[in-house]
Amino acid sequence: MKIGILGAGNVGGTLGQGWARRGHEILFGVRDPQSPKTRDLIAQCGDKARAGSAAEAATCEVVVNALPFAAGKEALEALNLKGKVLLDCANPLKSDLSGLEIGPNTSAGEMAADWAKGAKVVKIFISTGYNNMANPDYGGNPLTMFYCGDDPAAKGIAADLARDLGFTPVDAGPLTNARLLEPLAMLWIWLAIRGGMQREFGFRLVTR
Amino acid sequence: MKIGILGAGNVGGTLGQGWARRGHEILFGVRDPQSPKTRDLIAQCGDKARAGSAAEAATCEVVVNALPFAAGKEALEALNLKGKVLLDCANPLKSDLSGLEIGPNTSAGEMAADWAKGAKVVKIFISTGYNNMANPDYGGNPLTMFYCGDDPAAKGIAADLARDLGFTPVDAGPLTNARLLEPLAMLWIWLAIRGGMQREFGFRLVTR
Repeated sequence: MKIGILGAGNVGGTLGQGWARRGHEILFGVRDPQSPKTRDLIAQCGDKARAGSAAEAATCEVVVNALPFAAGKEALEALNLKGKVLLDCANPLKSDLSGLEIGPNTSAGEMAADWAKGAKVVKIFISTGYNNMANPDYGGNPLTMFYCGDDPAAKGIAADLARDLGFTPVDAGPLTNARLLEPLAMLWIWLAIRGGMQREFGFRLVTR
Repeated sequence: MKIGILGAGNVGGTLGQGWARRGHEILFGVRDPQSPKTRDLIAQCGDKARAGSAAEAATCEVVVNALPFAAGKEALEALNLKGKVLLDCANPLKSDLSGLEIGPNTSAGEMAADWAKGAKVVKIFISTGYNNMANPDYGGNPLTMFYCGDDPAAKGIAADLARDLGFTPVDAGPLTNARLLEPLAMLWIWLAIRGGMQREFGFRLVTR
């Protein structure tokens, strides 16, 4: 398959190398096809890759947007992508990586903290179904339970209570990160109900 | 530990049963402590659980909010939870389960579709680091790659390209679900950078 990749940074470069190794033809669309960094990348891809302009990359049957989110609008609007398969890999991150640029500015967890004045709120037990709360064991390995909050002692208690049920608790940061965990819960619900996966699945964080 | 649980539905009931079995004392705070459903639940918890009012549940050292999101504000504002550990399990779901009530009304994926007129956009390759795109194998098992989009053929191509890299692709629904996958990407980034987990971890969807 001919794959055009807009951007040759970590994500675009890694995807291109991986696909080139498996026989796909890669065209990196970059500002300067002759830059040392791009030439290095091409060399690592074997003979299956070359670099050109974004417009050339956009002629491939599959186009990958691996540009920073801030660069996407100008780049995509300038190209003719009608009918193309466009794989969008942009993350709309704040520049300090503290959160999403276009995400919500609150969460049910933060609202609970506002309503329950003075309570030490921990957001937990949302990212999986109640069936998994009854039994989080999957083939001898537990599911992960993500939690977030601002009070370390309260978080420790929450983690212990998750462990009591058989989960592996994972600290997902401050209470504002409920803005990340609540969509993860919604993803589980979507997969279970609309996605037809039923309820016997869950998420696990794995390490090497 | 004495744990008060607001609500005795699927989540609250399951958590209470699980903790009661492990020796915690459970007090379900419900509207009607004598309802048949509540009595059934109490019976299943052994001698470690009883039912009472929300105010009674709120006197426990740990309080769990397992009420529907819509009921949270009134319930929490009415209770004295100062200094309590409050585990908030509320999911701010739309009533048709199509998405989050308080989530964002767009995503970078939907914006890309708007910018790249006529392209068949698939949101993919965001929920893990580029190191995992180079090698998604964790102990002989692949990481999961979630993707979403509105064009079935384009999604099929995206899934094949994820498989080529060694991922297990999982269809996460329509392009609007980029509103769920982009926060998942942010969760990975948060854990890696601010959470101190470095880059050698990833997410896997597991089934029984």
